[in-house]
Amino acid sequence: MSYLEKLQKIIKKNNSNLVVGLDPDIDKIPAFFLKYKNPVAEFNKLIIESSKDIVAGYKPNVAFYECLCEQGVEAIRETVNAIPDDLIKICDAKRGDMGNTAEYYARTYFDIYGFDSITMSPYMGVDSVAPFLERKNKAVYILALTSNSGSTDFQRLKIDGKFLYEIVMEKSLEWNSDDNVGFVIGANHTEELDKFTAAHPEISLLIPGIGAQANDLNELLKNLHTKNFVINSSRGIIYSASKDCTEKEFTDFVRSAAVKLNGSINEKSAD
Amino acid sequence: MSYLEKLQKIIKKNNSNLVVGLDPDIDKIPAFFLKYKNPVAEFNKLIIESSKDIVAGYKPNVAFYECLCEQGVEAIRETVNAIPDDLIKICDAKRGDMGNTAEYYARTYFDIYGFDSITMSPYMGVDSVAPFLERKNKAVYILALTSNSGSTDFQRLKIDGKFLYEIVMEKSLEWNSDDNVGFVIGANHTEELDKFTAAHPEISLLIPGIGAQANDLNELLKNLHTKNFVINSSRGIIYSASKDCTEKEFTDFVRSAAVKLNGSINEKSAD
Repeated sequence: MSYLEKLQKIIKKNNSNLVVGLDPDIDKIPAFFLKYKNPVAEFNKLIIESSKDIVAGYKPNVAFYECLCEQGVEAIRETVNAIPDDLIKICDAKRGDMGNTAEYYARTYFDIYGFDSITMSPYMGVDSVAPFLERKNKAVYILALTSNSGSTDFQRLKIDGKFLYEIVMEKSLEWNSDDNVGFVIGANHTEELDKFTAAHPEISLLIPGIGAQANDLNELLKNLHTKNFVINSSRGIIYSASKDCTEKEFTDFVRSAAVKLNGSINEKSAD
Repeated sequence: MSYLEKLQKIIKKNNSNLVVGLDPDIDKIPAFFLKYKNPVAEFNKLIIESSKDIVAGYKPNVAFYECLCEQGVEAIRETVNAIPDDLIKICDAKRGDMGNTAEYYARTYFDIYGFDSITMSPYMGVDSVAPFLERKNKAVYILALTSNSGSTDFQRLKIDGKFLYEIVMEKSLEWNSDDNVGFVIGANHTEELDKFTAAHPEISLLIPGIGAQANDLNELLKNLHTKNFVINSSRGIIYSASKDCTEKEFTDFVRSAAVKLNGSINEKSAD
């Protein structure tokens, strides 16, 4: 089964295009987790337990684990293992290195940890992506037009009438032999999402920038002419409960934040 | 002391512009290391012990550690700790993520592990680099024109008469308020190195692609109009001894490979 098929299947089964960004900050998680040997792993597991039937998948950003050293490695492993097999496990790592090094990254995140897909920076070109694409049932989300302010520095440079991010997408689609190339486009770039998804409704998209980054969901969904997308929300869901909440309050808040956002996505997609 | 001053000081003290790329592959390191609890850490420590007076620094590529999970974390920590304080510790991580995430990467590699500098992908723009530059005595090496084949895919796109990599460098130099922005340019790009170093002899460069990637050292040094550079060699030094070597043979081979390459660099720089 290709990554795209797996994605389509879980979107349908859970009636959800939502992925939860698991970006745990030890200073922000509720206090009751601190009694555990690995608080961040337990935090993630409880989020997964509270939302796994109403989301399409999860997206841990590895930056939040690398700063925890050995404990972070354990937390990534336990987190991936806690996600049901039919959900999408996206590694947000934004890697991009030359061929022989890229092979080690692919091995780490796909073969060892068992992620289904990974975010990648395109700057180093085809050989930095190739080892990931050789794993036929896995996929990459290549950074195209990101949601942050710095995205204007280079991504919007104009080259013979096209933007750099458009050239990145055109070139990357040449590598898409197994339905395994997707893109990251920020929720704020509605005009560009409109244009791209009208031309390429089959290409899967990872869309950050809803929630803490507070872009307009309505405006976004109006411009999205594809079913193959996931919208990421991180802080708006995982920190929805207060720091002094109980375990029960935590699971209730997380679930209800996910239910609410998922409901909004489904309602507005149907318009 | 700025990063640039530290770099200049060690280049002078050790009479060396060489950095050794610590990219250990558990399947390639000599068999006698396998008796240790953490073979990769011991491998690195012996390389450092054998060469620390004749190199400017070391550059572990984190891809080779991430695939070792907890043991890799321990190996990075022990490796950085084994490098004398006056040598340059370059983290080859090619990171690049939005502001709040970039802060976690900066914290991890600069504050926790104690690296002096890090390689970065420019695609996400200024906020992905800012947290690293806030650590005033640390530095970034931004990917400009890399040594791999995929470097032609995007880095050489032409924008109003300039290449993308040139625009990346121009823009990045605007961020260089504390002598803390340098660039990665592959040894194969001699024409571009000629042009850039003639215009910016003060900007520090990290130059990969000598050694296993076998570019011509003579041609490279003829075109380098700066003293603020380091040339990386990894496989040509760290795998110079055979897999069944003794500890004594290993240290002899590593040292003599480093002495030889450093001698060639110094001899040809003096031309």
